[in-house]
Amino acid sequence: MPSASTITLNSPLDMHLHLRDGDMLQNIAKESAKTFSGGIIMPNLVPPVCTKEEVVAYRARIRDAIGDETFIPYMTLFFKPEYDHAFLESLREEITAIKLYPAGITTNSEGGVSGFDIETLRPALEAMSDLAIPLCIHGETNGFVMDREAEFVPIYEKLAQAFPKLKIIMEHITTKASVDALERFENLYATITLHHLLITLDDVAGGMLQPHLFCKPIAKRPEDREALLQAALSAHPKVMFGSDSAPHPREAKEACGCAAGVFTAPIALQVLAELFAKHGAIENLPDFISNNAQRIYGITPPAKKIILEEKPFTVPTSYGGVVPMYAGETIDYSIREVMDG
Amino acid sequence: MPSASTITLNSPLDMHLHLRDGDMLQNIAKESAKTFSGGIIMPNLVPPVCTKEEVVAYRARIRDAIGDETFIPYMTLFFKPEYDHAFLESLREEITAIKLYPAGITTNSEGGVSGFDIETLRPALEAMSDLAIPLCIHGETNGFVMDREAEFVPIYEKLAQAFPKLKIIMEHITTKASVDALERFENLYATITLHHLLITLDDVAGGMLQPHLFCKPIAKRPEDREALLQAALSAHPKVMFGSDSAPHPREAKEACGCAAGVFTAPIALQVLAELFAKHGAIENLPDFISNNAQRIYGITPPAKKIILEEKPFTVPTSYGGVVPMYAGETIDYSIREVMDG
Repeated sequence: MPSASTITLNSPLDMHLHLRDGDMLQNIAKESAKTFSGGIIMPNLVPPVCTKEEVVAYRARIRDAIGDETFIPYMTLFFKPEYDHAFLESLREEITAIKLYPAGITTNSEGGVSGFDIETLRPALEAMSDLAIPLCIHGETNGFVMDREAEFVPIYEKLAQAFPKLKIIMEHITTKASVDALERFENLYATITLHHLLITLDDVAGGMLQPHLFCKPIAKRPEDREALLQAALSAHPKVMFGSDSAPHPREAKEACGCAAGVFTAPIALQVLAELFAKHGAIENLPDFISNNAQRIYGITPPAKKIILEEKPFTVPTSYGGVVPMYAGETIDYSIREVMDG
Repeated sequence: MPSASTITLNSPLDMHLHLRDGDMLQNIAKESAKTFSGGIIMPNLVPPVCTKEEVVAYRARIRDAIGDETFIPYMTLFFKPEYDHAFLESLREEITAIKLYPAGITTNSEGGVSGFDIETLRPALEAMSDLAIPLCIHGETNGFVMDREAEFVPIYEKLAQAFPKLKIIMEHITTKASVDALERFENLYATITLHHLLITLDDVAGGMLQPHLFCKPIAKRPEDREALLQAALSAHPKVMFGSDSAPHPREAKEACGCAAGVFTAPIALQVLAELFAKHGAIENLPDFISNNAQRIYGITPPAKKIILEEKPFTVPTSYGGVVPMYAGETIDYSIREVMDG
């Protein structure tokens, strides 16, 4: 029987996850599947996932890498303005959402959207609205790195206003400006990563430079982190956990010209438990980690019970060649048991 | 005879220079001596330079590494609040300035000042004022990385007001806030690096992470760079060039947890010529690169004439194991000739 120092989570969901492909997929997908019931799988492969066949084939490769049925890969399509109603209807059953990347803004986003002209986007977005397909957006402009997300907020708002029945998810928000935008439009939602609840630019570049904490959007200011933390800890009903866990090989992270992304999948639940417990908000973790996402997306993930306990866990220095956040450090919570069904 | 596409500089000075010690000193000191007439040598060795004997011995090691007399190492002492008038008088002839580091703020600054209580600092700073020893300050607080310098400006102002005859040099300024402070107190001066005239945080962390552009103070916002550029290009009479050229071995820069510092000594004059020429301000470069410093510090460096020409130069990928700024890239100006005397 769980003692007072355990925390039980039901069907955790990771609403923003990069599982990659090939060897990397084989290496790391099972780390998410161990402790999560499902995740929104980002489509920014090379080439990006843009057709029904590609969605179906990618899902099959993910299932093959995971090897069990207790984790649902909720698939997404890489947004293109030319998608029409007939096309989207033909693959509606295969996808949970569509992900929009501004062109050139992050890893493998070269084929993304370069302008946000409403009339250009209208056919695709009205079709999505009609088919109740949520639109996930990586919201950054090409501006100065600390301003990119805040500069994108007016674009979120323009889209939210033009397509009031379209659910728009502001992905991996990092600023107070984005948190504030949640209140202004009913159809705006957000995911927040683990690392943006924990770090600011100080942790990346305030002491020595820390490539393993370098991510896009870059970690922002203390007041931004505070706004994110308050939204998560208070179980804001429009906010979901999305790790943006983004593995790169150690060589790519430690090289000159390091790639952006923090790998948190294997330790996300343990660290979230520690964070919420520390702030006396553990009763709100189920909403952040699963309930809000189920309601917003209208999904019912497989039943899975994760029992975490307050017991030190030393994070491995590598998972299949990928360095996780807190590599080699000791965190306060461990996974005691995972029960399916 | 120099053609129209050449630029002649007389006795360039680098008013903020790290020459290190040991093998590194042997490797890189001559790169500054080739094209500069002198430089203010920073004292943050391990242990820092704090006595007359240490100053004299360090100068001798620098001269030995350089091997000629056409470059003057203007020596500095590492500031400690316990320095008194008699001590400073005893080594007045050996030093050109004293450098103050807030504790723990940059490379080898652990023994620096932790509080800025005027009465604690008064004996040492009044002695410096009396002996006309300029005070060079690395002005950063322990605050958020983008705010550290602006947060230090009130400390600069407090010192400037309390010691009105003390020349205070705000070293390697990176913000509009510091440029603005120059106007408010007669006894505040500043150095500006090459890299802070060229880059913003975007260049360090806006695309891939670029450890070779990681420095302290960190590169700031576009409007900050613009303010620095205007001060330099207009030959602001209180502003001097100080490269803060800070070599680290390639391994230390490209490692996880990269050290702060950009190595610009070998290419500084060429790139400054290009920058000032591009902005139509070449006639102001002599003030920025030498005349202002001679007047502010009251020094007369060895006569040395540097003829630069508009001719592509491919920057070596390494100088003795140290990666310079623009490594492997082609810049527009070359050193054509250096004439002593």
